[in-house]
Amino acid sequence: MNEADVIAALRALATHPAARGLRDDAAVIDVPLGRRLVATHDVLVEGVHYTPACPAGDVAWKLVATNLSDLAAMGATPLGMLLGLTLAREAVWTADFIAGLGRVAALWDCPLLGGDTVSGPAVLGLTALGAAAAPLSRMGARVGDELWLSGTVGDAGLGLRMALGEMAVEGVLLKRYRRPVPRLGLGAALAGVASAAMDVSDGLLIDAARLGEASGVGVAIELDAVPLSDAVRALLPAGEAGVLAAAASGDDYELLFTAAPAAAGAVRAAGAAGKVAVTRIGRVLAGAGLRLRGADGPVALPARLGFEHGRGCNAG
Amino acid sequence: MNEADVIAALRALATHPAARGLRDDAAVIDVPLGRRLVATHDVLVEGVHYTPACPAGDVAWKLVATNLSDLAAMGATPLGMLLGLTLAREAVWTADFIAGLGRVAALWDCPLLGGDTVSGPAVLGLTALGAAAAPLSRMGARVGDELWLSGTVGDAGLGLRMALGEMAVEGVLLKRYRRPVPRLGLGAALAGVASAAMDVSDGLLIDAARLGEASGVGVAIELDAVPLSDAVRALLPAGEAGVLAAAASGDDYELLFTAAPAAAGAVRAAGAAGKVAVTRIGRVLAGAGLRLRGADGPVALPARLGFEHGRGCNAG
Repeated sequence: MNEADVIAALRALATHPAARGLRDDAAVIDVPLGRRLVATHDVLVEGVHYTPACPAGDVAWKLVATNLSDLAAMGATPLGMLLGLTLAREAVWTADFIAGLGRVAALWDCPLLGGDTVSGPAVLGLTALGAAAAPLSRMGARVGDELWLSGTVGDAGLGLRMALGEMAVEGVLLKRYRRPVPRLGLGAALAGVASAAMDVSDGLLIDAARLGEASGVGVAIELDAVPLSDAVRALLPAGEAGVLAAAASGDDYELLFTAAPAAAGAVRAAGAAGKVAVTRIGRVLAGAGLRLRGADGPVALPARLGFEHGRGCNAG
Repeated sequence: MNEADVIAALRALATHPAARGLRDDAAVIDVPLGRRLVATHDVLVEGVHYTPACPAGDVAWKLVATNLSDLAAMGATPLGMLLGLTLAREAVWTADFIAGLGRVAALWDCPLLGGDTVSGPAVLGLTALGAAAAPLSRMGARVGDELWLSGTVGDAGLGLRMALGEMAVEGVLLKRYRRPVPRLGLGAALAGVASAAMDVSDGLLIDAARLGEASGVGVAIELDAVPLSDAVRALLPAGEAGVLAAAASGDDYELLFTAAPAAAGAVRAAGAAGKVAVTRIGRVLAGAGLRLRGADGPVALPARLGFEHGRGCNAG
């Protein structure tokens, strides 16, 4: 696949009028009236964020999904994306990547609108653009709010260990790591319901601490309430040790959000609209910092709450 | 400069409310009422688009300027930018890069709104967002229109040879290569005046051919009319050979545009508003392809019209 082939393949995807056939100097996008533009840009580096052996379709999926997860956390609906693609890999890989990008763009109605193709090492950049009437923020949690989580945590962390060859592969968990699902429906439905929201990419504990810090409040999590999948329960230690391990692992891309107690019914309705379970896992306190509570009272924070920014360990 | 320092330095730049202090999942941008969003993403690779020896401030300048030049070509006013930054270089370089980014963002009123910082090889991505009431396109040239060019061409091509050590350095030309000026004022003033526009990044001849192809018309250039700076005239061969060399070199980031003959006065006014000379260099013809005309009649196209997409030769 030479560069002309790559551009032809990308143009075949870029059928949305805003893309202008990838033939103009930039894309022209109409943000719907009354909506604000929400924009995020994530970078994936081969050998850092995925291994060279990772299937190209999975890399495309993750590149798009991680960006759309940020849009979901803002309650935004996708408008489209711009791709920064280096031609670093063999032709089959690149063709598979572009085909995968097309599938995931169609799946989430997020058309390819523009970008750049250059020679260079394997670094992928994606800008996702979305729109929301009243974007959510991680800065709005109020004392007395309840803390909610979508789906389950710990799945992708075990999937990462499987991708690294540290554990026997179980398909459903490996898929949770390689093909995370951005909670776009839930995020959009939480507008006007949640007081704060973010996506859980680096681990529930560290991200909950960040949400509290951004909002200037404290956050308490009930460990017994943290939802784990059956597959995770079967592989992690029983009890609090297993929950702590799951809550300190990353890449689940679930939504963590807060809402007033009176909004609990609306939160459940948003979960139904977004076709994902929502679980109340704690509450917002005065003060600062993260507190954990188990069946027998307070539980000390583990030494590691999750992945710090820029983690090099997120390979797979 | 460790990663925490890098993020602190970027946050210090991101004072625009839309950036949300780089603490939220995405930026939230208000596109002014009645304007359409214009979005572009360019990637610079060390060793491909700039040499490791290139000053970090110049790399930051070029990264922003090349993107803003695309906005200028659409007649858009900058709203802000998202940065994809790999931490590949030594601390001093990164600090200089971020300082340079801040200067150029302030210069063109294009605030840093978001992005991603990761470990990895030296690949820089930038998404520029802008707004325009009626974005220009390279697809609107009509038979009978006149072809116009801002500024001069050939300067940056000689600057590139200086950067590569192939010629004795002359400061003004090296600067034209390393610090191109996006023609934002001219682009904005051309809205409603120009029928088509694009920026000249790969060479006047190849880009003029692309404008004609995108608009489905032929383009004729009068070589005698192509504006060259005194510095370029002094270094290139006299006559048509020199003009052809200048017109086949890249990186000038001038605007190439078309307008109806009756709009010539408005074009000159737009040039005055944009504080850059505008020169009529040819016209739009029925048919297809690029034709050149010299003092003695038709001139054959040179074998090389400019840089093809994805050029690896654009180092410096």
